[in-house]
Amino acid sequence: MTKIASLTPPERETLLSQRPLWRMVEGRDAILRDFIFDDFVAAFGFMTRVALLAEKADHHPEWSNVYNRVSILLTTHDADGLSHRDAALAEAIDALV
Amino acid sequence: MTKIASLTPPERETLLSQRPLWRMVEGRDAILRDFIFDDFVAAFGFMTRVALLAEKADHHPEWSNVYNRVSILLTTHDADGLSHRDAALAEAIDALV
Repeated sequence: MTKIASLTPPERETLLSQRPLWRMVEGRDAILRDFIFDDFVAAFGFMTRVALLAEKADHHPEWSNVYNRVSILLTTHDADGLSHRDAALAEAIDALV
Repeated sequence: MTKIASLTPPERETLLSQRPLWRMVEGRDAILRDFIFDDFVAAFGFMTRVALLAEKADHHPEWSNVYNRVSILLTTHDADGLSHRDAALAEAIDALV
């Protein structure tokens, strides 16, 4: 599989400034955002929309859900860290909420 | 909210013997099962079915997904640990796969 370029330092700065609700994950080259909804139905409805985005982009999150809370972590295994794919998927996810 | 009875020791033994693919979680009164599917679509399709079961039962898992893998943790906050609700949901989830 073709290796994907990881983000350069300026690209990382741009990513974090453009996506202020995402934060770097300690100990990993990854970004994470937590979402809170009214209830499980709203949370899982959101997850379903993210799942469709992710499958279309062929880029999938590491994520978890507890009732009305969803945490989404993005990183690119083929880049050993953050890539433009994460920036693009984070932007698409932010556009949902 | 009405407190729910936690499982008695014999009920726990029965749960774990009837649900051999679930294991106790270290440090929590909870059970966990890991599932592996062919791909993300299969994994998320399974999650959608579990979400419908959970909503119908008004009992929701703590769960995570990474591509083709799904981990489901069950516990009952109103019982401060395992209850009959977890046993029933684990049985219903096992019946899906």
